[in-house]
Formats: sequence, C-alpha cells, structure tokens
Amino acid sequence: MRISGQHFRTIWPTAASDVQIIDQTRLPFTFEIATLRTAEEAAHAIRSMMVRGAPLIGATAAYGMALAMRTDPREANVARAAELLRKTRPTAVNLAWALDQMTAALACPETERERRAFARAAEICDADVAQCEAIGRHGHAIFEKRLRKKGGNTTLNVLTHCNAGWLACVDWGTALAPIYKAHDAGLPIHVWVDETRPRNQGGSLTAYELGAHGVPHTIIADNTGGHLMQRDLVDIAIVGSDRTTSRGDVCNKVGTYLKALAAHDNKVPFYVALPSTTIDWSLADGADIPIEERDARELSHITGRTAAGALETVDIYPAGSTALNIGFDVTPARYVTGLITERGTCPASREGLLALFPEHARAAA
Amino acid sequence: MRISGQHFRTIWPTAASDVQIIDQTRLPFTFEIATLRTAEEAAHAIRSMMVRGAPLIGATAAYGMALAMRTDPREANVARAAELLRKTRPTAVNLAWALDQMTAALACPETERERRAFARAAEICDADVAQCEAIGRHGHAIFEKRLRKKGGNTTLNVLTHCNAGWLACVDWGTALAPIYKAHDAGLPIHVWVDETRPRNQGGSLTAYELGAHGVPHTIIADNTGGHLMQRDLVDIAIVGSDRTTSRGDVCNKVGTYLKALAAHDNKVPFYVALPSTTIDWSLADGADIPIEERDARELSHITGRTAAGALETVDIYPAGSTALNIGFDVTPARYVTGLITERGTCPASREGLLALFPEHARAAA
Repeated sequence: MRISGQHFRTIWPTAASDVQIIDQTRLPFTFEIATLRTAEEAAHAIRSMMVRGAPLIGATAAYGMALAMRTDPREANVARAAELLRKTRPTAVNLAWALDQMTAALACPETERERRAFARAAEICDADVAQCEAIGRHGHAIFEKRLRKKGGNTTLNVLTHCNAGWLACVDWGTALAPIYKAHDAGLPIHVWVDETRPRNQGGSLTAYELGAHGVPHTIIADNTGGHLMQRDLVDIAIVGSDRTTSRGDVCNKVGTYLKALAAHDNKVPFYVALPSTTIDWSLADGADIPIEERDARELSHITGRTAAGALETVDIYPAGSTALNIGFDVTPARYVTGLITERGTCPASREGLLALFPEHARAAA
Repeated sequence: MRISGQHFRTIWPTAASDVQIIDQTRLPFTFEIATLRTAEEAAHAIRSMMVRGAPLIGATAAYGMALAMRTDPREANVARAAELLRKTRPTAVNLAWALDQMTAALACPETERERRAFARAAEICDADVAQCEAIGRHGHAIFEKRLRKKGGNTTLNVLTHCNAGWLACVDWGTALAPIYKAHDAGLPIHVWVDETRPRNQGGSLTAYELGAHGVPHTIIADNTGGHLMQRDLVDIAIVGSDRTTSRGDVCNKVGTYLKALAAHDNKVPFYVALPSTTIDWSLADGADIPIEERDARELSHITGRTAAGALETVDIYPAGSTALNIGFDVTPARYVTGLITERGTCPASREGLLALFPEHARAAA
C-alpha cells in the first residue's frame, strides 16, 4: 500500500541481505525504517512490537531464520534460531507455521541454507500478499452485497477492531483488504476505527493507514461500538484473527469478543478475515489457546504529541494502582457470521472450514 | 469517604455561603478544592466535568440554584438559573429532578429564597448520602450471598465500569457503595476497574477512590472484561446509572452495554446500583434517552504525568484523523440481573420497579 504516494511493503530484504521493516512503535507520529541484521534483532522486533500482526510476525520470523543462516548455517543454529524466534510471542499461530516452513526448507546442505532461507522467506511474503489480495476480493464482494441490501445512494459503515491492515501483514492486510478494495473500486465506505486499548493499534495504526490511503474513517473509544450498532450506524463488522481453531473460534485482539456479542445482539454481520496460515487445525476449542499477558506499562503509559510538537510518554493512572494487560480474547464461532479466507468465505464451523480446505480433514479430526 | 484519613463529601457549603467541590478534572494527579460563587460557576463545573456522576450533578445544580438566589432571589432569576443549569448536561435525569425540587422549594417570598435554597440543597445532599448508604447495605447482602455460593476462603471479584463511586455522588457512591460496605465488613473483595475511555474515569477516579480507601483493585482496558468473564475471573458486575427507564433500561457510561452482554453470555450476575432519583418514570424505552456527544478532544488528548513528574497533555491520534466521542449507551433491561435501589433490590422491569416504588404507578403507566 502507499504512504505519501510511495508503495511499501512492511518487510523487505536489502541488496546487502539485511532485512528492513517499518518500525511500527513509532507510528503514527514518525515513519521510520529499521534494519534487522541478526535473528536476535528479528526476535527483538517481534517481541517489542516494532512488527506486529499475525502474518507479519510470521514473515519476520521467516526472515529472522534467513538472517541466522547468513551468520551460521550449521544444523544447530537452525534449531537455535527457530527456538529463539518461536518464544517471542505466544498467541499467533503464523509464527510457528512460518518457522516450521523455514525449518523444512533448510533440510539441505549447509552451503545452500542462506540462499534457500532468503528465497523461502520471500516466498512466504509473496504468498501472504497474494492471500491478502484474495481476501480483499472476497470481502469486497460481501461489502457490495451488503450495500445493495442497504439500498440506494448511501455509505457503507464498517467497524473494525485493532489493526488487521497492511501494517499487520506484508501488504493489503486481512480485515482492511476488503476496505481498500471497496474504496479503490469507488464503493462509498466509512470505517469506524476502534481505538483498541491498551496499545491503541486502531487509533494509531489503522487510522494512520486509512488516512494515508484516503479512506474516510472515524476513531471511536472501544466502548462505543455497541451503541453505534444499537443505533443502526454499523452495517458490517470485520476483524482479523491471530489464531482460528478448526471449528472456527477466533482469537484476536482483546475486545473483539465484546464487539461480536454486540453485533450478534443487533443483527450486524460480523466477519473475520484471515489467511489460512492463522488456522490452527490442531485445536478445536478456542478456550485452549494461550493468551498473552503483557507489561502493565503498556496500559498505564501512553505516548503522544505535546502541544509543542514533541513526543512525550505520560503515566495516566493513580500512583499505587496496578493494571492487568491481556492481549487477546476468544470469540466463539457462534458469534461469527463468516470467515473470509484467501479461498473464499465460509461459515465459522468445522464443516465450513473443511469445505474450503479439505486437505486438512485429517488434522482437524 | 476518606482521603488521606480525612472524611470528605464531594460538595459542601462554606460558612460564607459559597459552595466548595473537589475538582475532579485534576484527579488522580492532584487533589484540589474549587470554590463556586455563582450559578454560572456551578454550571461551568458541571459542563466541564469538575463534578460528574448523576447524583453529584443533581447536587451541584441544587447548590447552583442556591448561589443564584444569593445574588438575585427574584422570580425571573429562579427560572433563568434553572434553565442555565438544566442545559449543562443532557443525559442524567437527576439534574432535571434536582432543579424541579429546587424550583418547587422556591415558591416562597423572595426574602426567604436564599435560605430555603441552601436548606433544600443540603437536604438533597443528605438524602443522596442516605440513599447511597442504603444501596451499599443492599448490595453488600448480594455480595455476601454470591461469595457464599462461590464457597470457601476465596476472594469475590467484582467488575465495575466508569466511576459510580462516592466521587460521583455526595458520599458512598452507588455501584461502589456495596464494595465499600463489603470491604469495611471484612469481606475479601477485589475490584476489576474498567479504565473507561474516553475520559478514563475508571482508571483515574475509581482507582483513586479505591486506592485511597485501601480496597484491592486492578485497572483493565475496557476491552478486557469479556475475556475475564469467559475465564471465570469475574463473580459479579456492578455499575451505576445516569438514567433508568420505568421498565428498567439503563443508560450509563458508554461501554456498559458491552459488559452487560458479556455478563449475560457468561452467566455473570450484572447489577445496576441507583438511587431512585435516576429513574425517569416518564420514559419506558431506553432508545428514547438523549445520548450526549462530547468534544472529540476528550478522546484524542490524554493527560498524565511525565517521567519528570510534570502533568502533560498529549495527542495520541494521527494528524488528520477525526474521532467521535459518545458519552453513554443504553443497556436493555433483559441484560440486567437486578436493580439495587435505596429501597432494596428488584428485577429490571416495570413490575419490579413498581413493587419498590408503588407511588409512581401512575407516572409509569
């Protein structure tokens, strides 16, 4: 997607076989590119959320393996780097998937490993872009149908939570891909952007992305979506997924579940957009997904611009009060209208998923 | 309740017939007392949320009338001051109630008006304290029962949204009154405090109150309550109400509805604590309650302490993104387990409310 008219991906290799990323901890205030030179730096980028979003975490882990092979292509280092990267974040399943892909690709002579690793990481990125673009097309069709049903010359109001945009992926995004496709095709669309506390990825990253691309949007407090749905101001809700179980339970940024409940209560279609790499075929019940707890400081401390234009971080809580920072929640499949994948849209159920991905019938059994 | 060991109410007259309040826009960072000398200053205090919370808004409006009578006790000024104060906030029904009470009390000779106004305002405050204390007792009984049902030597985990504590009232609070009563009686209690964006009244005021009183509590992002309920970490939810309809729909701080949905989905009892002054007997359907929209700056700008200890306000959104600041939402009665009033607890229904308040049968018809 574009920033100031220039096309970017969120991660790319340089001519010198370093890897560059957009440092997302600096957004929306400054656009900075960071260079990763080692697997350790890739692991740090994931852990510190310089990169975030399930697909981009996977892509970064893949390039982390490539960087490890550049330094030391021996067998022991394949295992060591994979282990290092695997431990960075517990919830997203793409991370493990990408590392498994890389490990499999590195079952080759030592001398070939660096080249193979960079090639496989690039393939993983290209595949993600293709998947997101396909999700965009399928979602766009749903939006068009919804707008036709709404009827007439009106705007489609879409609510989204967190950032499942191109900044969470390599390009296009998952939940935002249909929004970009629809907007680019001239569909009148307006996006309600959940701020998404504690880290405000909606109010910072999603709003930044949509603004840079010219998509009309309004930031709202996470508390607001239910009211907007009650007043018929949301036509459709769409979010991403960090891990989807084989029966269609969806683990996504904390608060997704609350919006799904409100959508259900107000008969607002609630869609989840996901590349199939986020499906964990080994898990049926979302309650079994490990949920990340992060530093309470992410909740108590907020960074913004002062009136003088400087970046400043402030502590907003009373001295002595503690906070709990839970990263994700699980939305049971029964509250999900449909899953939008690169192969099309299906009901959030075992049957629905297997109809699109029959090759996983054994794993999902 | 107590701050640093000293008992305070949130509003009180001085010997010089001024009115003093705790300036809640400064909390939790500094404890400052502000003096109101005119009805205009009282109106400003309500509008700017130096005082907030339905009961305290009513009390401040009452004293605003008294201040007006001090300056000019003529008939025209009764009407003018009531009109000025009535327009400050649109949602809370106590405001209109208190102004009607004051206007009725001021149907007397001009020379008596100042004295009568101060006396009636003091009565309104004392009645609020008595009501909140009674709500505390009734709620405490519910907490005890819930803890017994949970069984054994364990902690009762209570979730609350926004600030319905003593800072929202004259003393005790509504939703927090049972918490103080239970804590003071030795019940092991822990409170999940919803941060309550946009204005963070939970993370600032509720956390401040509970901390000052020594009640164990943890601040959470507004997105988190659903997950905690799914994982059985919430035993009971209790919130306040800015306006309750005759059939038990509850208008409270935006996001209350989402928590009620999650409580319903997870069979967590969801109680609303309210003095009967917040009941609008003239309204049945919560959808008819006017919902306040406030300045988007309350969402985009946050105040906190810098590392150097100074107070600083920062803008957290991308340049060019707009935000919408909705203050309240309506929780339909079907998601409310019970209404805790000064006369006891009842189902959230017309029948339930009229059983406790039969004198309103005609108004609610």
